[in-house]
Parts: sequence; C-alpha cells; structure tokens
Amino acid sequence: MSQVQRMSRLMAKTLRDDPADAETLSHKLLVRAGYVRRTSAGIWSWLPLGKKVLDNISRVVREEMDAIGAQEVLLPALLPKEPYEASGRWDEYGDLLFRLKDRKGADYLLGPTHEEIFTQLVKDQCSSYKDLPVMLYQIQTKYRDEARPRSGVLRGREFQMKDSYSFDTTDEGLAESYALHRAAYQKIFARIGLDFRIVSAVSGAMGGSASEEFLAPAAAGEDTFVDCPNCDYAANTEAVTFTFTPPAAAVEHGPVEELDTPDTPTIETLAAHLGVPASATLKNLLVKIDGEITAVGVPGDREVDLGKLGEHLAPAVVEVVTAEDFEERPDLVRGYVGPQGLKIRYIADPRIATGTAWVTGANKPDTHARNVVAGRDFEVDDYLDVVVVEEGDPCPSCGAGLKLDRAIEIGHIFQLGRKYADTFQLDVLGQQGKPVRVTMGSYGIGVSRAVAALAEQSADDKGLCWPREIAPADVHVVAAGKALQTELALDVAEQLAAAGLRVLVDERAGVSPGVKFTDAELMGVPHIVVAGRRAAEGVVELKDRRTGEKEELPVADAVARLRA
Amino acid sequence: MSQVQRMSRLMAKTLRDDPADAETLSHKLLVRAGYVRRTSAGIWSWLPLGKKVLDNISRVVREEMDAIGAQEVLLPALLPKEPYEASGRWDEYGDLLFRLKDRKGADYLLGPTHEEIFTQLVKDQCSSYKDLPVMLYQIQTKYRDEARPRSGVLRGREFQMKDSYSFDTTDEGLAESYALHRAAYQKIFARIGLDFRIVSAVSGAMGGSASEEFLAPAAAGEDTFVDCPNCDYAANTEAVTFTFTPPAAAVEHGPVEELDTPDTPTIETLAAHLGVPASATLKNLLVKIDGEITAVGVPGDREVDLGKLGEHLAPAVVEVVTAEDFEERPDLVRGYVGPQGLKIRYIADPRIATGTAWVTGANKPDTHARNVVAGRDFEVDDYLDVVVVEEGDPCPSCGAGLKLDRAIEIGHIFQLGRKYADTFQLDVLGQQGKPVRVTMGSYGIGVSRAVAALAEQSADDKGLCWPREIAPADVHVVAAGKALQTELALDVAEQLAAAGLRVLVDERAGVSPGVKFTDAELMGVPHIVVAGRRAAEGVVELKDRRTGEKEELPVADAVARLRA
Repeated sequence: MSQVQRMSRLMAKTLRDDPADAETLSHKLLVRAGYVRRTSAGIWSWLPLGKKVLDNISRVVREEMDAIGAQEVLLPALLPKEPYEASGRWDEYGDLLFRLKDRKGADYLLGPTHEEIFTQLVKDQCSSYKDLPVMLYQIQTKYRDEARPRSGVLRGREFQMKDSYSFDTTDEGLAESYALHRAAYQKIFARIGLDFRIVSAVSGAMGGSASEEFLAPAAAGEDTFVDCPNCDYAANTEAVTFTFTPPAAAVEHGPVEELDTPDTPTIETLAAHLGVPASATLKNLLVKIDGEITAVGVPGDREVDLGKLGEHLAPAVVEVVTAEDFEERPDLVRGYVGPQGLKIRYIADPRIATGTAWVTGANKPDTHARNVVAGRDFEVDDYLDVVVVEEGDPCPSCGAGLKLDRAIEIGHIFQLGRKYADTFQLDVLGQQGKPVRVTMGSYGIGVSRAVAALAEQSADDKGLCWPREIAPADVHVVAAGKALQTELALDVAEQLAAAGLRVLVDERAGVSPGVKFTDAELMGVPHIVVAGRRAAEGVVELKDRRTGEKEELPVADAVARLRA
Repeated sequence: MSQVQRMSRLMAKTLRDDPADAETLSHKLLVRAGYVRRTSAGIWSWLPLGKKVLDNISRVVREEMDAIGAQEVLLPALLPKEPYEASGRWDEYGDLLFRLKDRKGADYLLGPTHEEIFTQLVKDQCSSYKDLPVMLYQIQTKYRDEARPRSGVLRGREFQMKDSYSFDTTDEGLAESYALHRAAYQKIFARIGLDFRIVSAVSGAMGGSASEEFLAPAAAGEDTFVDCPNCDYAANTEAVTFTFTPPAAAVEHGPVEELDTPDTPTIETLAAHLGVPASATLKNLLVKIDGEITAVGVPGDREVDLGKLGEHLAPAVVEVVTAEDFEERPDLVRGYVGPQGLKIRYIADPRIATGTAWVTGANKPDTHARNVVAGRDFEVDDYLDVVVVEEGDPCPSCGAGLKLDRAIEIGHIFQLGRKYADTFQLDVLGQQGKPVRVTMGSYGIGVSRAVAALAEQSADDKGLCWPREIAPADVHVVAAGKALQTELALDVAEQLAAAGLRVLVDERAGVSPGVKFTDAELMGVPHIVVAGRRAAEGVVELKDRRTGEKEELPVADAVARLRA
C-alpha cells in the first residue's frame, strides 16, 4: 500500500452485528471489520485488509526462514495418491483428506502437509552427503476436511501454512536444523507481536521423536497447556511428566478387609458411603491394548489421560472396553474391579507405589476392599504416568503449582527422523562411499491461523488492534466533517504516503464522524489521525489506537511524529 | 535473495539431457536448469530458482495492478458447486473441471476462474453506486483438468494466475476499467521483458462482448494469430474480419451446364478433372445449427472456420453432419451438393457475391454444374465471414498480405457485461434511487505460463537467458579453480550482496570449471563473474550472459560496474 487507500472504495464493508455463527472474538471481529468473508463452510475469502495482514506475516516468515538458509519452493496442492499410499497417510488421514479423481479416473488428494512430496523431491535432487543438509520451505494453501470447521480462519478447511522440511545425514545434523527452526520461530512470533509459549509436545499422528509446539495463549484456543507461574516450564497437557517420590518409610497396613458397599459403582458414591477422600481410593479403568484387556490404576481423584496412555504404548492401539467385553469376562465385575487377584495386565500411575494402601473394588458385586496394599496384595506390571494433569499439580521443573491455560497452536517443530526416508528409501552417498539414510525434520506455522491468533490476543472492546509490524496500514486518517476536513484528510494522507507510510483515508461522503471513528477503531490500524474541528487551523488529532491517548498537533508535526 | 545463495546447497540439480517427454524449449530448459520438477501429469513443483522468477513476475503484476487502483484479495481455490451451477459453468466446463465431494457428500470444485465468487462478493460488499467502480484482483492457484497436459508449465493442470474483475454501473465505466487494465497489461509485459502483441479475440466460452488477447510470439505457442507486416494490425485468427468488395460491373454468364464428373468428390479431384483452379469452384459444407441442417458455401480453395461460424451463430450450437444425417436426407448427395435448388438454409462467404459464377455440385452423384450464378441460380440466406484466414490474406486494416504466427496466450481482457450480474442479480442503488444492474469485466494473466513464455522467447542455444527484472539472481559468480578462486568468488559474492544485488555463487568442490560454466549459461542469470586464472591478482572476468561479451577487471571495478 504505497498509495493512499480510500475507504470509499475499499472492499471492507464493516458490520455492526456479530455474524450469527461466530463464537470466538477473532471470528467476530475479522468478519465485522471486513477482513474476511465466508465463502463456504470453513472456506474463507481474504478481503484487502485481511490479505495485507496475511502478507505481512508471510513476509516476516520468509525473512526469518531465508535467514537460517532455508530455500523457498512452491509445491502443488493437488497431489497424486501414490506417495501418500506408500506412507500410509492416504488411509490414516481418514475423512480429513479431500480426495478426488481426475478425468481419467486417477486418484488425487488436496495436500494437508507435504512430507511425502518433499522426500521424493530431495531423493530426485540430492545424491551425496555433500548436497546436505538442506532446508526447504513453502508458504502454500493446505486442505483438511475438518468435521466441524469453526472459529473462522482459526480452523478452516482451506488455509495458508508455512511448512518446511530439513534433510540431514546425522542425528546431530537434525538436532541442529531443529534448533535453527526453533530460533527462527521465536524471532518470527516475537516480530509479529504474538505472545507465545514453547511447550513440549507429543508427536501425534506424525510418528517421530522430539517435538515442540508454539502456543499463543488465548481464550478461543482449542489446546490446553500447563504453564508454571514460578519457572519457565510449559507443556502440552499430554506431555507433562511427573516425577513421583514414593513415601520414604514403609508403613504397616492391616490385612485386606472386605466391605459391603451396595450401589457404589463410582468413586463419588464410594467415597461418600465410606466417608474417605476420593484420593484414598484406587480407580481401575479397563482398556484393550491391541485387543488385550488391561487394567489401569490411578488414585480415585484423578482421571486417566487416554492420549498419554496411547503415547506410552504406541504403536499399540488403545481402546476403551465395551459392555460386550464385560459379558465375555465374568471375572471382571463392572464398577467393582480391584487389582488383587486379577488375571490381566495391570498398569498403574506411580502414585500407586509399593507399600501404599487403597480402598478399591473387591471383584464382587456391591463389595469393596480396604487395606489393599501395592506389592503385598497385588503387583503392578508397568508404572506409567497416565493421569490427566490438573490445575495445581506440581511443576516437574520447580514443584510450584501448575496453571492450566487455553491456547492456539500456531507452530509445531518436529524431529521426524527416518520414517519418510525409510518409506521412500531416501539415501545419499556417505563420506565412506556407502549409502546413508537421511533423517528429516518437519516444521509448520499456521499463517492464516496466526492472523486469528493475533486478532484474539490484541483486540479490545472496541475492535481489532494490530501490532504495527503486521497491521494492514500504519495510519488511518479520518475526515470528520465536510469539504474542509475531507480536503485536509486527503492532504495529510498524501503527505504520510509520501513519507513511506501505508495509509487508509476515510473520505466517505454522507458517513458521520461517529461511524468513521467506530470503523477506525474496529479496523485496528495502530495510529488514527482525525481532521476535525480545528481543520481550518491545520490542526489534527493524533490518536493511539491501543492506549486511546490523543493529542492535537499541527499537520507537519503529526506527519513528523508518525514518520519517526 | 538478499543473501548469497551457494550452489553447493541450491536445490537446483541441472541435467545434461532433455526430459524424455519434453517437446517445447521452455519445458526442456526449465527442467534441465533445475527451475521446476514434474510432480504428476501437468502438475509441477517450483524449485527455488523457478519460485524466484514466479515471484518477480508476480511483484510486477502487483505493482501495476495496485497502480490502477485494483485491490488485492485472496479467494479460495476449493469452491462450492452452487454458484457455478447457477451460472451454468458447473456443466459447461465438462471434463475440464476438477470436481470433488467433502466428507458430508457436498459438491465442490477446484476453481478454474472466479467470476461467480467475485460477483457474489461484490453483491455482499456493495450496495450503492457510490461503492463503484471497484477492481479486485488475486494471484492464485487455478485448476483445469486438461485432456493432454503438456509443454511443462505452459499448459499445466494446476497453475498460477492473476485474475481480476471490474464492477461498474455503466458501459462507459466498464470501457474505462477495461482501458485501465489494457494499459496496465502493456506495462506489465513490457517490464518483464516479454515481446507481445495485442490481438482482437473472440469471446470463447465466457460469453460477452469486447475482448483482446495478449500474445507472446513463440514457436511453442498453441495459438495462431495474424500479424500485418505493414501496419499494427494483429488478431486472433478467429477474430479476423475481411471486408470483401464485390466486382463493380456485372458479368454475363452462360446458362447452368451439367458436367459428368465421375469420382470427383473432393475439390482437388474436381479441379484436376476439369482443369480449373480450386478458387473457381464452390465448396458446400453441411452442418447442423441447433439440429437444423444448413449448407455453408465458401470458395473451393478455402476452409470453413467452424470456430468463427460458431461465434457468429452463438448461442446456437453448430455440429458437423454425420453419415446418419445423409441417410435421412436422400436429397443431399454427399460430395455433390450445390446450392441451386437446395431446400435448406444457405450461408455463404461474402466472396460468393451476387453475380459471381461457380463450378459446384449438381445434387446428383458424379455430376457437377458450371455457370451456377449467385442471385440467379440460388439465393444466399446469410452472408457470414466464415473462412479460415490464410497467410497472405489482405490485412483488414491496410490491405497488405497478412502473416500467420504462433504465439502463447499470456493475457486476456474481456468486457463480460451483465452475464454474471444477471445470474446473481447484482444490482446497486443508482443515483436516482433505483436499482442499477452492474456490468463486469474479467482480466487474466497466466503468471506461471509467463515464466514459460519468457523462457521460450529469451533462451538461446546455451540455455535460459532471463531479462534482468525477472531473473532469479542478478549475478552468478563462478569459482573456476581451487581454494584461491573459491575464496575470491565468495568474497566477490559477499561484496555484490552487500551492494544490494541478488547473488548466486558456484563454490562447489569437485566440480570442474567447464561444468560450472555450462550450468551458469544454462541457468541464465544475466551477469556472470568468473574468479579464475587471474584470481591471485584480484582480477575477475565479467561476462554478459546474452551477448557473451567478456572483460577482465579488478574486483572493485567489477563490483562497481554491476552495481551501476
């Protein structure tokens, strides 16, 4: 926007009311301020202001990716089935993948991410260890057929992403490429003005090892993460690992004692019936691990985190047991399972340490047992950290009580390892003349999602309020009055543009100053200049969109101030 | 590329041999020089050098579109069926459209162009004549499921296009928006260094009125156009209109005379048999116009241009008659049709003027007739200019003999009129308070195609040879030797980069100077600097890629020269 953009022609119709289906702040404001329009469910059109914010973020991403030596490419969005079939993702993605056929009946997909295609590209391009390491990136349109597209551009079915991929011959090389990306991401998010946390992440469906997420704390976020108020520890809830210290001295417990506990199939009913805290009871969840029924024991006041359990046991598949499973196993008494005498695998939270005593099911209907001691009355096959993290749990780093917060995932960095290189046999000739399997990293930034995250974090009750680096304009000039004010506003706008600033000018005829002020605040350009009451004297009002601070200044001073 | 890009890491593997399936020069060279790689039939990946050329063209397009006040937006590529069903294009596009269903079974398409969506957008955004005119554009990925994707990125199935749309309330306004685009396109193509011609075009499948094409003459082009060597007339072959001057004085002709002409079903056999020139015979092609059999008469030495005929008769559908049609009409004697006594509609080329006499079919097997005079022996229902234009035909503007050339269509501007506004009832409130139907223009530039067109036009026998404004780098520095040369090359590269130039440096170890020179010429960066024989003295060779001119200079002078 080296030229002045006039509001009378700007394709950015503002709305006074929130769109009916909008739940999140960014969705409401980006639509109301004329930044985006819905074209279809989860599919959005970027209007001029939105496109500028998108471009500003992309520019910062490009600069920082170029700075670490990554090379920009552009791969297709319409991709052949075969490479995704080879990697297994053609099926694994399930309904999330948009699939189609061409006129000859060949199968294609709309790319959700491009690991397969980049792996093939590097296989075509690189043959020697001398050709590596390389890092490649693209800013490109991605597709995911979300079951419930929602929250505007925060979770769309077509969206803009920066994805990059690193290729190294050694694990140390991969670690270095990963570190370069991590540092670049920190710079990118800092430059665009995003408040973010880096958290340990589990790998999810991608398969691989080290992985971190960049989260933007926001009420609209779909991710929950733990945040230590005392130290710099932060993690995805599924990635929190506790170190449990068992009691130092063994305590003598009495013998197991059966209790008649009718109608107490839940922890709550049991604890109330016996008058003990839920934390004194032992809850046993039955699951199937690759089809084998297994019990998972946790203190009664905690929940089992099936995601964490799945991560521990991957690639085994974890499922919850069904009513049919209970029917086939009369030894498992629903609601009254206890580990003592149980003939199945027993996994337990480290809190169920050897020597600890519990109230738990007696494996008979309406009956519980007390003084059931770990290591005496039952054995634990595997200790795994599987409880859902809760507010106040001790920080694994410093022990302070953790906080739980909502956030938007805006970046993900990932040491993929050799999964895709194995699939496509991506080898290069090593220094010793023998083929070396390549190891990969994959790294993503949700560019269109970052627009929404920034909107969420920076908006106030008046509307959007962009950080300067990514704002769609530097200055919003408002002509608040008649011909005199309009003339002055246009003149100021031209002066500011001549000084290299990106300028919006609201010279609309027949629109009241009040409406113009409201629109300016809704649109969120950082500086507002008003040509109003004192236009005849050549005095304008300079207003800071964020702080609301106002100052009256002669035009020349206002231009000088904004230029600085 | 503000930094120096080292060839040792550049994702641009050069090939000595042409790809097996490549027919056109640009296809061969863009692949061989490592600019693009095929991902699937007609679907291409842009490697770093190709991406830079694409970006450079896009930048010029943006600057000139912004300069005429067009606003950039970004619409989705994945589009709902409904608007395209409303316009009729869901069906009209036939197999060219990529169609798909989402997880809920709803129909979508991958956008070939966006008239429907822009019309809907403007309907949502603009309500008053005060909101118009507006021009909107996007540079975006487009899809066409070509039957025979070929010629590399010249005709892909996924490609980059700049499409823009103008919205006006009056025909004069549309003409002005059209003129603005026409001027912007001239600037764009001139700036990127393309040799182009603007030709009158027929409207094709888009429906509408005034239309011009921007053609880049190139042997690989799929379009043929006529070009006057004497004046500035140029046109799409289907758009050439001739003004035929009938003979001034009427000539007396003898009566119709039947001739026994066995085995002469073609003009060639007939002309040979009778010893007359083909131009003295009258050829009658039978077609069906909306199912009605019609004869089209042209001189025997000319061909009927079915495209032109279709344009004249649109929206009627023109088909060629089949053997079955002849069976149903025994009055039509295949190979011996003449207009005299024929009971069907007769369309003729203006050359079949009243008073002219012809040798033509006698409507009996093996029989022709001579002295068949237009206006005496038969009547012409409609005179239409329907002959295929030929080399040497008179220029409609100056009368000189026309040339026929091959070209690549790189731009198209088009006064659409109210077709889409009618479909979507796009009205705004007019100055008199009554709704006014909006009139539209649509304008396209094939951005990825322009890369191929520029490659075609600028390449020489050594490889690519880019115009400076769109070259992927300004300077290609070659280290031709050992450590000393490499050190100097890197030093020169850094100096050039510090001076703001975009620099490639070939510091590959174990690659011979000969291979590096060949690669540099293949890649086509405008200036080549060689650190070679005289490196110890700090002298480099400066070479112009296009002219091959060489000069030896001290480093400081070479840097100063290139900076200038």
